[in-house]
Amino acid sequence: MNYSPEIKKLIEDALSEDIGTGDITTLSTIPRERTAEGKYRAKEDGILSGIDIAKEVYRIIDPEVEFTAFFSEGERVKKGDIIAEVKGNARSLLTGERVGLNLMQRMSGIATRTSEAVKAVEGTGAKIADTRKTTPGLRVIEKMAVRAGGGTNHRFNLADGILIKDNHIVAAGGITAAVEAARKNAPHTLKIEVEVEDLLQLEEALAAGADIIMLDNMDNDTMREAVKLTAGRAITEASGNMGDRDLRAVAETGVDIISIGALTHTVRALDISLKFTLA
Amino acid sequence: MNYSPEIKKLIEDALSEDIGTGDITTLSTIPRERTAEGKYRAKEDGILSGIDIAKEVYRIIDPEVEFTAFFSEGERVKKGDIIAEVKGNARSLLTGERVGLNLMQRMSGIATRTSEAVKAVEGTGAKIADTRKTTPGLRVIEKMAVRAGGGTNHRFNLADGILIKDNHIVAAGGITAAVEAARKNAPHTLKIEVEVEDLLQLEEALAAGADIIMLDNMDNDTMREAVKLTAGRAITEASGNMGDRDLRAVAETGVDIISIGALTHTVRALDISLKFTLA
Amino acid sequence: MNYSPEIKKLIEDALSEDIGTGDITTLSTIPRERTAEGKYRAKEDGILSGIDIAKEVYRIIDPEVEFTAFFSEGERVKKGDIIAEVKGNARSLLTGERVGLNLMQRMSGIATRTSEAVKAVEGTGAKIADTRKTTPGLRVIEKMAVRAGGGTNHRFNLADGILIKDNHIVAAGGITAAVEAARKNAPHTLKIEVEVEDLLQLEEALAAGADIIMLDNMDNDTMREAVKLTAGRAITEASGNMGDRDLRAVAETGVDIISIGALTHTVRALDISLKFTLA
Amino acid sequence: MNYSPEIKKLIEDALSEDIGTGDITTLSTIPRERTAEGKYRAKEDGILSGIDIAKEVYRIIDPEVEFTAFFSEGERVKKGDIIAEVKGNARSLLTGERVGLNLMQRMSGIATRTSEAVKAVEGTGAKIADTRKTTPGLRVIEKMAVRAGGGTNHRFNLADGILIKDNHIVAAGGITAAVEAARKNAPHTLKIEVEVEDLLQLEEALAAGADIIMLDNMDNDTMREAVKLTAGRAITEASGNMGDRDLRAVAETGVDIISIGALTHTVRALDISLKFTLA
Amino acid sequence: MNYSPEIKKLIEDALSEDIGTGDITTLSTIPRERTAEGKYRAKEDGILSGIDIAKEVYRIIDPEVEFTAFFSEGERVKKGDIIAEVKGNARSLLTGERVGLNLMQRMSGIATRTSEAVKAVEGTGAKIADTRKTTPGLRVIEKMAVRAGGGTNHRFNLADGILIKDNHIVAAGGITAAVEAARKNAPHTLKIEVEVEDLLQLEEALAAGADIIMLDNMDNDTMREAVKLTAGRAITEASGNMGDRDLRAVAETGVDIISIGALTHTVRALDISLKFTLA
Amino acid sequence: MNYSPEIKKLIEDALSEDIGTGDITTLSTIPRERTAEGKYRAKEDGILSGIDIAKEVYRIIDPEVEFTAFFSEGERVKKGDIIAEVKGNARSLLTGERVGLNLMQRMSGIATRTSEAVKAVEGTGAKIADTRKTTPGLRVIEKMAVRAGGGTNHRFNLADGILIKDNHIVAAGGITAAVEAARKNAPHTLKIEVEVEDLLQLEEALAAGADIIMLDNMDNDTMREAVKLTAGRAITEASGNMGDRDLRAVAETGVDIISIGALTHTVRALDISLKFTLA
Repeated sequence: MNYSPEIKKLIEDALSEDIGTGDITTLSTIPRERTAEGKYRAKEDGILSGIDIAKEVYRIIDPEVEFTAFFSEGERVKKGDIIAEVKGNARSLLTGERVGLNLMQRMSGIATRTSEAVKAVEGTGAKIADTRKTTPGLRVIEKMAVRAGGGTNHRFNLADGILIKDNHIVAAGGITAAVEAARKNAPHTLKIEVEVEDLLQLEEALAAGADIIMLDNMDNDTMREAVKLTAGRAITEASGNMGDRDLRAVAETGVDIISIGALTHTVRALDISLKFTLA
Repeated sequence: MNYSPEIKKLIEDALSEDIGTGDITTLSTIPRERTAEGKYRAKEDGILSGIDIAKEVYRIIDPEVEFTAFFSEGERVKKGDIIAEVKGNARSLLTGERVGLNLMQRMSGIATRTSEAVKAVEGTGAKIADTRKTTPGLRVIEKMAVRAGGGTNHRFNLADGILIKDNHIVAAGGITAAVEAARKNAPHTLKIEVEVEDLLQLEEALAAGADIIMLDNMDNDTMREAVKLTAGRAITEASGNMGDRDLRAVAETGVDIISIGALTHTVRALDISLKFTLA
Repeated sequence: MNYSPEIKKLIEDALSEDIGTGDITTLSTIPRERTAEGKYRAKEDGILSGIDIAKEVYRIIDPEVEFTAFFSEGERVKKGDIIAEVKGNARSLLTGERVGLNLMQRMSGIATRTSEAVKAVEGTGAKIADTRKTTPGLRVIEKMAVRAGGGTNHRFNLADGILIKDNHIVAAGGITAAVEAARKNAPHTLKIEVEVEDLLQLEEALAAGADIIMLDNMDNDTMREAVKLTAGRAITEASGNMGDRDLRAVAETGVDIISIGALTHTVRALDISLKFTLA
Repeated sequence: MNYSPEIKKLIEDALSEDIGTGDITTLSTIPRERTAEGKYRAKEDGILSGIDIAKEVYRIIDPEVEFTAFFSEGERVKKGDIIAEVKGNARSLLTGERVGLNLMQRMSGIATRTSEAVKAVEGTGAKIADTRKTTPGLRVIEKMAVRAGGGTNHRFNLADGILIKDNHIVAAGGITAAVEAARKNAPHTLKIEVEVEDLLQLEEALAAGADIIMLDNMDNDTMREAVKLTAGRAITEASGNMGDRDLRAVAETGVDIISIGALTHTVRALDISLKFTLA
Repeated sequence: MNYSPEIKKLIEDALSEDIGTGDITTLSTIPRERTAEGKYRAKEDGILSGIDIAKEVYRIIDPEVEFTAFFSEGERVKKGDIIAEVKGNARSLLTGERVGLNLMQRMSGIATRTSEAVKAVEGTGAKIADTRKTTPGLRVIEKMAVRAGGGTNHRFNLADGILIKDNHIVAAGGITAAVEAARKNAPHTLKIEVEVEDLLQLEEALAAGADIIMLDNMDNDTMREAVKLTAGRAITEASGNMGDRDLRAVAETGVDIISIGALTHTVRALDISLKFTLA
Repeated sequence: MNYSPEIKKLIEDALSEDIGTGDITTLSTIPRERTAEGKYRAKEDGILSGIDIAKEVYRIIDPEVEFTAFFSEGERVKKGDIIAEVKGNARSLLTGERVGLNLMQRMSGIATRTSEAVKAVEGTGAKIADTRKTTPGLRVIEKMAVRAGGGTNHRFNLADGILIKDNHIVAAGGITAAVEAARKNAPHTLKIEVEVEDLLQLEEALAAGADIIMLDNMDNDTMREAVKLTAGRAITEASGNMGDRDLRAVAETGVDIISIGALTHTVRALDISLKFTLA
């Protein structure tokens, strides 16, 4: 896993939260020297994500725990597959059980859902993207999970992309004023994206020179019209409750990107179990 | 809101994550002195939670923003209700929009689901509890949301409760050994809870003197039997995929507590909007 | 030592405090490549605690320092015993000398005093417990030292136990009101403890269903009466200046627990020296 | 109180440690809107220290709590004196009770003991100083308490003073070599102090040009001789178990400074109570 | 100043670094209650930046200090102008003097140099941009100073922009391979910039579809050729020791952006004094 | 490198700042398993500093990167010299490139300039010292670079030295009052330094017993007079725009120390390149 100060901090904070001042059950019931081994098993089909995180959890808790992964980030697992094995001090294994498993289940759930979306639009040229509607504190790993599922990431935070939405348009005094201000004041390295709600706004955004147009909550016919109108002058992005839409139909309107908040804001964890035996 | 170093840190971290090095869209499109006002509106019925958090977000970003709440933690809101108003510098309002709203939607979703569960068992004497299956990093506010919904909290982390589960029983060498070790080594202020899978294990746990018995994944008939067998010697807690069960039927077996991981691990956010107008 | 984010942070903070921007004496007087070795020697009899902490201090400062312990946590050492040896770069050895030694001396002092208390009540069935009167910032290792001395830990902090004291009783409107409120609002996994000052309050607390009764500042006769009155309905805990009492006499009143603030609030460090020689 | 990032962090960490994820007793037994008031009362005579810390604790927990101090840092209090009053939300008052009180009791204990030492040497010209044997994590406030008691502070940490002790002398190859290396390599703004155990070492240290001589564990006659020998060429500092010595006799040997580790490593807290009544 | 968790942390860290465990000179020489006032005076002409930072420094140290600014961020000051006044407790004023002044001098130096560069290219259509060659730890305020001087910011860090440089081209296997990989794997919201060293590489980068071309270390004739060749298909950016070049001549080649590392890596602070008088 | 919690934190913060949420260029263009090697090459003559920092950067990013240094801290390098080699995963090498190089270039620039100043005064007995005018956040490594260049360090921060400057003299009520207050209130381990602007102030400072005299902004004749007047009663330190003075001439006035703010506040980085090839 490439070095990430954010992920390291995220894992340490999660461990602090869960362990608090000490795992009293484990410390009071398990002899200090006992060793054990455990198997992570997929209880349903899906795309694996977070395997490196689960490994890192144990590396932090006890560097002597051996963690052997049989699948890697982004690989498909089937119900019953042994994903990984851990072996080492029983107290260490039990203390770290929940945090690693939780993160991997959540990430694999996101990767799996993303992968279904990607499959739904296969061959249309549309890409599946996430949004900023991630779980507070977990954005960096949730976006990693979207990539594992074959999706692409939208901007990470408010600093690394310009996205002019309805509230900005109101406060800036119109689309044209907002785009011009952004072009004048913002870094030349960033693309300017504008959220539009109808074709009139689309025309204004294109005329103002937007690089990306977010088509917000449009029906498929309007979207098809919008793509035609845009005519390659900007990237088109379908957005707004895309989690409840027929993605293939959306993709067939010709949009370049479909961004789906539900990939990360309504997560169903992938079912993975971890069972120990004495070693 | 009572002082909580944890919640303060959680909000600051969420803001850091979302704002990064600066909200470039807002800074480049909104004039520095513009003011605006916004309304939080419930788009569906539910139980409100996190209103103090949303207020705190703006207090951190800009102490001059006025935040007026019309409902308090744990109150029922109806579709269309104005929950709160904010007024102040337009840049501040836009920069803090997402983090406060995200947290309040998630917490209200948890409170609403908890409240439905509480209602389902009304009159039976059973209490609804959460578990440790919370979102990493958000446990303190997710448990707050469960309380807002009328639920009760299970132990917060591994340090403040003894819960002997299957993996501990394996590593400790049986239920009796595990309970005895816990009784001997752990603080006298903590109750000892044991997870059992059948009536045989239940007998052993009761004989060993467990204070709470977690009845794991039992059908209602077995649970009813277990409650009878326990005969008040311990608190009984139904657990294991309770999110998919008929809670009333479970409660009518006579268990004292029903703990539901799904309250916090599969969250559907309550739909709340925030729209701004120039002030 | 079992993984503890708290202990890791405690050691790092202590090192930062002591080293500041650099150990100028060592850096200016000791050649960079010089090596040395040192011996930790007990200057009086006692119970060892904190040996793993002293080792961890050197692991942080310089992973190449070899630290060999001849005694483990909780073992008895005699005057003159060599407790451990360190060997490595002379600058590293000198820079880390004070912090590790300080913590081990303090912890061993606590363990030794606890062990004397445990011995005093041997055979009576009473357990020796600590309190929340620990040194701010050092609670996690001071409670570890109490365990090393054979004592048991009271609740760790305000989050993991309910202890209704005089000030709560005043603010809640009486013992019965306080216990009922706690039973209704607090997690079912926590025991409810009530501090009582006389037998009248004891009766009220028992009637209200308290799980543990703290007998505060009672003479032995009253305590004996209290134990009789309680008759096994609750755990009894003797408290209040127990550091100055004849512990055996207290234990013989039949109380289950004797909690002693002085174990941690008036610490006499165990005398341990660390002397270096050139290697 | 002058701005100190260290003290702010120390208080916040102590509150985190003590409150954990929430003061469950207070939250479950005290109604949200109840108000109360409390009085800090001296239970014995002494020198007050830490009153600003106790105030800061409540400012962090709840800025609306009113804290009125009747004595200031370094003032003498008598048994029965009301030191300060607090008034405000009952939950806030109870949650912050222990941390502020603990710190003030400990600091006042240190100030009181320091003040006794200062009094013992009154008129002799000797000053009382502390050492680096402070409680890990609390050095900044323990040294503040020594000042409140009329003492002076020795160097704060390894970065702000040169003190060549036995272990450095061994590793550097003698006193002369050590002092010369320090003079050559260390900042010109720092004085060079050398620990000596006999008059021979004293001669060598003086010849090498030490600015301060620490007379380690000498009897009074030897110390008197050492002062005469030094003849004003360096500051003389008596050190080594000074907590158990007759300080007046030590001072009368003519030493400039007496440094006493026991001021901070064997602390007896000053007894101060805090009792609440409903407001 | 818009909320920035980064800037808040930067100031607190700078204060910790400079104050350490306490400003011993001020505490030992200035009476506790003394008040004073100070004037910030420009000792040379320039563009002001960091005035809000200097104010924030005092807000952190002592909220009762009154800070009145007579110029704002980005305004031109002349030699002799009073930029701001501070008034309050003398200890607070002295303790915070250096950190605020240092940051403001450095930022104003950067703003002034940027403004000179902007002026040099006035009317040509070229924009002046910074680079990632900022002082470690100070990037957020150095980029703020560039904006104050009329410059525009390049990407903030490695996460918010794609810039394929020589080392990436080597490791990726050529420009075309690198651009294709970036287009496939990176967010659609980011522009792809490629560094080229000659016209051959330029052709390849344009053919591969780069959005921005960095013309690295080219002479003006080659740059003019490059702009012509690009023909509006990409943004052109002149780069490489631009601090030593005739900026007007560079701008007249027709490039869109001139990015100058020297704006932030070779900073000459603007001379601003701060003198106090007793109040 | 001796253990330093400050340096560790400084590097981690610089990496966080530069990498943000991930090095998107490297991650999207370089295959995961590719390896490479790089050479650090001096592009001009100078004194090397920060080589251990550059190594530590890679140790944090990826412990498997091999870093081989051919020169050590404080050694002279010549144009063309290979300073060090790195070898390992190409992504790791590229991600860490800038931070390590930046710090080493800046530190080597400081060391080189210091070394020139040291050479200029060779044989005169004067020492070259730095000041507190360092880059906020980088003081610990900038002072390390001054040592590498043969200079000596002035006090590190406001806590570890007493330096009474013009603003203190104003607020304390004169030099004599200030020195007396410092002598009375400050630790006996610290020297008292007074800044004087003319010979009258010098007389007063000497009479008051200052240990060090800072001769502020004096011409060489006045300084020569001042040294004569001081006659060994205190250390003399020349200060005030020394970066623009003829250092040899200043040294020949007989001052003990010349402190030069420009060593660290106007840094010209030493030119060092880092080029990679596929391994």
